[in-house]
Amino acid sequence: MTYTSTECLFCKFVNKEIETKIIYENEYVMAFLDINPAGELSGHTLVITKKHYQNIHDVDEKDLEELIKTVKRIAIAVKNVSGADGVNILQNNEKAAGQLVPHIHFHVIPRKNGDGIWFDTKRRALRPLEQAQVSDLIREELKKQTGFL
Amino acid sequence: MTYTSTECLFCKFVNKEIETKIIYENEYVMAFLDINPAGELSGHTLVITKKHYQNIHDVDEKDLEELIKTVKRIAIAVKNVSGADGVNILQNNEKAAGQLVPHIHFHVIPRKNGDGIWFDTKRRALRPLEQAQVSDLIREELKKQTGFL
Repeated sequence: MTYTSTECLFCKFVNKEIETKIIYENEYVMAFLDINPAGELSGHTLVITKKHYQNIHDVDEKDLEELIKTVKRIAIAVKNVSGADGVNILQNNEKAAGQLVPHIHFHVIPRKNGDGIWFDTKRRALRPLEQAQVSDLIREELKKQTGFL
Repeated sequence: MTYTSTECLFCKFVNKEIETKIIYENEYVMAFLDINPAGELSGHTLVITKKHYQNIHDVDEKDLEELIKTVKRIAIAVKNVSGADGVNILQNNEKAAGQLVPHIHFHVIPRKNGDGIWFDTKRRALRPLEQAQVSDLIREELKKQTGFL
């Protein structure tokens, strides 16, 4: 018995309202191919929770553990099957970060040298004092979280 | 007592051979700011294991669970501190996937609408039969993993 959102595409996969080819499922999670895979290699897989969570901010700890354990196993399998040189694990939260379906999912993306995929992350150097000040701010914020620090 | 690699930059952080400003640490993991953050927002954080693992392929399950639990907490804190509209969780495996330091690490990247960061993932449509065939291949590969499926 899983809580679902009636409007959610991934919940429809979980409830078998929409049929998809399942690679793996257990009580907590489900894995299937992304219908719009990145690049030419085959094997770009999504791993989702069966319960409906929007993203990493609200996911339950047990479900998150099951997600990442499955991501690891899928990553190894996808690398072997696809002949990839590497793998990206990507999990986007909110539209600003590229989240298209508002149900938590991890991308497992097989990569090949020279495949043309490019994460343009606009790297810069840390500004003076930024490291000390921002680290302290994040640490203070962590202290507000129940049972942490 | 942690196993370390003598040549590894992140192991030097763990062993305090190189000083860095620590945001959070426990027995298993450590978090600190990336010295080359993505984009203009402050708060791009790396979460690493204290033990040396190359990446998701060889990381121990307990360490992986500690990593992702910490990633979640850091993601919430970073979003609050940075005023981000969203957060990317990114974990790269092997050079082909953009892994620069060969010690497992998760990026927590705060994102703002219109920040110019762009993941050019070269999406395409699944090819005919690809979904069925590749899903079966990955599933067969998963069966080879001890204690899985």
